[in-house]
Amino acid sequence: MTQKVEVVRKILDSNDRLAAGNQARLDDMNVFSLNLMASPGAGKTSLILQTLSHLPPEIKVGVVEGDTAPVTIDADKIAEQGAPAVQINTGGQCHLDAVLLELGLNQLPLEDLNLVIVENVGNLICPASFKLGTHANVLVASIPEGDDKPYKYPNIYRGLDVLVINKIDLLPYLDFRMDYFKQGVEMLNPGLQIFEVSCKTGEGIPAWIDWLKAHIPAKAEAAKE
Amino acid sequence: MTQKVEVVRKILDSNDRLAAGNQARLDDMNVFSLNLMASPGAGKTSLILQTLSHLPPEIKVGVVEGDTAPVTIDADKIAEQGAPAVQINTGGQCHLDAVLLELGLNQLPLEDLNLVIVENVGNLICPASFKLGTHANVLVASIPEGDDKPYKYPNIYRGLDVLVINKIDLLPYLDFRMDYFKQGVEMLNPGLQIFEVSCKTGEGIPAWIDWLKAHIPAKAEAAKE
Repeated sequence: MTQKVEVVRKILDSNDRLAAGNQARLDDMNVFSLNLMASPGAGKTSLILQTLSHLPPEIKVGVVEGDTAPVTIDADKIAEQGAPAVQINTGGQCHLDAVLLELGLNQLPLEDLNLVIVENVGNLICPASFKLGTHANVLVASIPEGDDKPYKYPNIYRGLDVLVINKIDLLPYLDFRMDYFKQGVEMLNPGLQIFEVSCKTGEGIPAWIDWLKAHIPAKAEAAKE
Repeated sequence: MTQKVEVVRKILDSNDRLAAGNQARLDDMNVFSLNLMASPGAGKTSLILQTLSHLPPEIKVGVVEGDTAPVTIDADKIAEQGAPAVQINTGGQCHLDAVLLELGLNQLPLEDLNLVIVENVGNLICPASFKLGTHANVLVASIPEGDDKPYKYPNIYRGLDVLVINKIDLLPYLDFRMDYFKQGVEMLNPGLQIFEVSCKTGEGIPAWIDWLKAHIPAKAEAAKE
């Protein structure tokens, strides 16, 4: 057992070093980056599409799509909106890691970008353990998943910088206790920044966009420094 | 790389042997068993609760709850309905495996049971790779997850014996193309047995119960053999 723990620790150490390399590279290019995590179907791709259509045109966005199967459904939707999108097939692995993100970044024109959004694999467990080197961990939770998810998947909630609660348009049709949900979140991650949105109706998206814009460094100014 | 593949193969071989042991044990006791898989929040626990309330009282059910965190939310709900429920905490691991199920079965009164339902960890990726030794792999898909899931998570669909499509009461509020969804399923798993249900309204549950009853062996007759 000790040996197994040792091997796992070494894998995570090695991943952390690669993640630090990714972050240094993004910082050098003055690119802000998000690690977007969620259950399957919570709305990661929908949030990316809403973000692309709401950000002003001078903010250039690149997307890295993590998928466990060689399908380009999400990458195609993003490319249709004109953003450079790179698909990384994890070959069945249930999460992205720093080396996979490095491969993704290699294929993006970082010098022209202000923001990189990494869409992790749909999974609430393993993505929480593997740093990528992005600047903010963002979870998309969705109303139909139920209000007990922070209690059942505490690790992912503990490591978040932002929580986006999606599909609030479905609240009238579901028994979702927002107070109970937020109480669980607050217990795990006090003061966490939360946005309540509907990627279907667009409700709540402007506040998310304002937060993003406040975190994206001005590329031109950085170049002058 | 070859060495890594070899280690993974050995882990899976060892898991398969333990799974065969679990199945032999369940067969000896004339117990039918389900490996219930799903995304987080698709409705595994709700389907178990509906199943418990619809099965005739002479069919005795035990439940093994797989969780990645030491919370007993689901196990408590099931115990409230009077079924013996065992909680297995995977310690952060993103799926159950045969040895964890063995630990669960050790705590159930198999001699008194007709059906064991194993609620796997909420995840569409890793549970597909680890046999447990149960008789049928059942996936609970849900309408709000979206109609592209078979295309994105093909491995889990390929290994199914039954698919339960839950939350059909939400169809009027969502853009879910049932034809596109089922076309993906049919491509991966031709002729798969599918039930469309709402665990909220009870719609479609009787057909699922009929299927279950047809697969549960009569305990008394088996004892006579």
